Amino acid sequence: MAAADPPPRGTVRNPGSPSALRRLNQRRVVDALLAGGPATQAGLSRRTGLSTATVSNIVKDLLASGDAAVSPTTSSGRRALLVSLTPPSGLAIGMDFGRRHLRVLAATRGYEIVAEQEAELAAGYHPQQGLDRADELLAKVLVAAGAQRQDILGLGVGIPGPLDRRTGTAIGGTIHPEWVGIAVPELFRQRFGLPVFVDNDCNLGALAEVTWGSHRSVENLVFVKIGTGVGAGLILNGAPFYGSIGVTGELGHLTLDDRGQVCRCGNRGCLETFASTDVILHLLDGRTPGKLTTEAVVQMALGGDAATLRVIDDAGYSVGRALGLLANLINPEVIVVGGPLSGLGETLLAPVRRGLQRYAMPAVGNSTTVAMTELSEQAEALGAATLVIRSSVRP
Amino acid sequence: MAAADPPPRGTVRNPGSPSALRRLNQRRVVDALLAGGPATQAGLSRRTGLSTATVSNIVKDLLASGDAAVSPTTSSGRRALLVSLTPPSGLAIGMDFGRRHLRVLAATRGYEIVAEQEAELAAGYHPQQGLDRADELLAKVLVAAGAQRQDILGLGVGIPGPLDRRTGTAIGGTIHPEWVGIAVPELFRQRFGLPVFVDNDCNLGALAEVTWGSHRSVENLVFVKIGTGVGAGLILNGAPFYGSIGVTGELGHLTLDDRGQVCRCGNRGCLETFASTDVILHLLDGRTPGKLTTEAVVQMALGGDAATLRVIDDAGYSVGRALGLLANLINPEVIVVGGPLSGLGETLLAPVRRGLQRYAMPAVGNSTTVAMTELSEQAEALGAATLVIRSSVRP
Repeated sequence: MAAADPPPRGTVRNPGSPSALRRLNQRRVVDALLAGGPATQAGLSRRTGLSTATVSNIVKDLLASGDAAVSPTTSSGRRALLVSLTPPSGLAIGMDFGRRHLRVLAATRGYEIVAEQEAELAAGYHPQQGLDRADELLAKVLVAAGAQRQDILGLGVGIPGPLDRRTGTAIGGTIHPEWVGIAVPELFRQRFGLPVFVDNDCNLGALAEVTWGSHRSVENLVFVKIGTGVGAGLILNGAPFYGSIGVTGELGHLTLDDRGQVCRCGNRGCLETFASTDVILHLLDGRTPGKLTTEAVVQMALGGDAATLRVIDDAGYSVGRALGLLANLINPEVIVVGGPLSGLGETLLAPVRRGLQRYAMPAVGNSTTVAMTELSEQAEALGAATLVIRSSVRP
Repeated sequence: MAAADPPPRGTVRNPGSPSALRRLNQRRVVDALLAGGPATQAGLSRRTGLSTATVSNIVKDLLASGDAAVSPTTSSGRRALLVSLTPPSGLAIGMDFGRRHLRVLAATRGYEIVAEQEAELAAGYHPQQGLDRADELLAKVLVAAGAQRQDILGLGVGIPGPLDRRTGTAIGGTIHPEWVGIAVPELFRQRFGLPVFVDNDCNLGALAEVTWGSHRSVENLVFVKIGTGVGAGLILNGAPFYGSIGVTGELGHLTLDDRGQVCRCGNRGCLETFASTDVILHLLDGRTPGKLTTEAVVQMALGGDAATLRVIDDAGYSVGRALGLLANLINPEVIVVGGPLSGLGETLLAPVRRGLQRYAMPAVGNSTTVAMTELSEQAEALGAATLVIRSSVRP
């Protein structure tokens, strides 16, 4: 039960408003139950400092939503009701849309993966086609999980580019054009008729690292995804950081060379023009018969192919250079590298660390840990499921 | 009274610990009194949702620290005690150490400046000399304020470089060498025998903009100081952001040209090698008889001197370029420019905006406001005073 939801972290917005106060108080009761186990209402009042009337109202809400249950007990010789969180039930669905892939998984509120499906998507697929495939995979996931549609708590959705959080629409420059301008949450809500939580894939990767990964206690973490694009998700003070309009961590569009190649964002010499998997594939084109794939590049590097190692080294160093700029600004404790090259391990991490050390101030570079994700390519879908799990105990 | 302290914002660390819970509850009572005025303990319990026992304990603490007072009243026909925050009393001292200047001011908890003194310091002064001058200026400030040492609530101190928050020591690379390795809070505590709060000057400038300045409602703000060095302070989710070890916003050490001039941080082509006042003075050297000063540069630019305008334009554009990288990562709502060139107004802001627009992604550049500080060169000292004022109501 203790793993049902990690302790809430991060910032309380508009702390003075009545609804914020109510959420804050509810959160404290749920946290007290997660941290200390079942308790009477009087016990919850002692644990939280809240009045018994406030606790009583919150418990009423939790009972109504099915998040808590009561059972008889005795307290100081008198009969009382013991409040406990209900065993994690319902499934959180995480969907991760890449530029060419789709992953759908189901997880419990206890942070266990129940079933998972993945599929390739055609480059430049239309979002409607993506939704069709997602619907098919979701059906398979439910069959594998032995579950029904009504068991779904909600859908977490990762999309491969930034969202303008003022409007919920995907914005241009980094995502493939078919998604731009679409109100993504609304699209999924209409299709699936479920609560929907949408975020950028890199933000979800970062969230997964501090909920599913081995960095649960880290307050300031950066998740870098090196794929068709290069992006970063930021966990600052323990919570995903969205900035003013929701476009943060655009590492792939830091200018490294003012006179460099033209980037699809309209700028020149962005990190993406040095380090995306597209660039790597282009540089190594023709070294194998047939069409080269990212998986083949990983195998060639691990097999010691000199040209492949050189290209990976250059790409990793450029990523490290951009991370040096980032580290000078936000000084993270941990940087986690993810994406389809994560199988390269130290072969990729070593040049990333070299670039970081060279471009960050020494005190910053020396205190930053760079690690490979341990969540392989599931990170983004797991983070999407986290959005659902977190929301399910904090209405 | 409502202005005694802005509502607390930002992140609660270790929200589950008893001391954090106590601080959180006390903060809510103080906020309720700031937002809604005097109230009975029962009223405070209703306003906050806290139990009357919890409220009673908090009020006891506030009375003991002199932060609150009680007066008789009637409530629902019964006699009761009205709790109110004591009128702001005591002085917050803000000290701002620049590379060549010192400013000391006294402010009330009601955010009013009572007295102020400033002095020039010799380049490369020893911190001990700085403290001697600060002691002299503090004595003058107290005389001007008609106050005594015992009226001082605490000292806020800004230093011109990063602090390692793990140890409280100034770190190398950007600050003048005499401060490096010194445990700054301890040094001031020993000298003045007062509560001491130390931070980097840019962080304090940012804090001043959201407490004294016109950006009180802004959640994500960057304060850029262009002076002998170039640095930035970050307000993220409403609170100063310190990252992992306290070294954030090192804008001046973002590499703009990999083969550029050697920077004192040990890197090459950092923003500081393009845009510090030292660089500007060096480029314009010899255009006036005698030694050129920053003030003279401002006058020459405002007078329309072509070479000066060109040099300012180039420097501003470089700052804007670095801000474009920063904005792609943390997407601030407002960027405020401060420091000794702030008198240049639009002459400096225009190239900064141009650089930002060119290097930031369009959605980010278009939604970021760039403004000149309205706090002139007081910003850092005002932010230092804010540290004291904030601490004085939140033990």
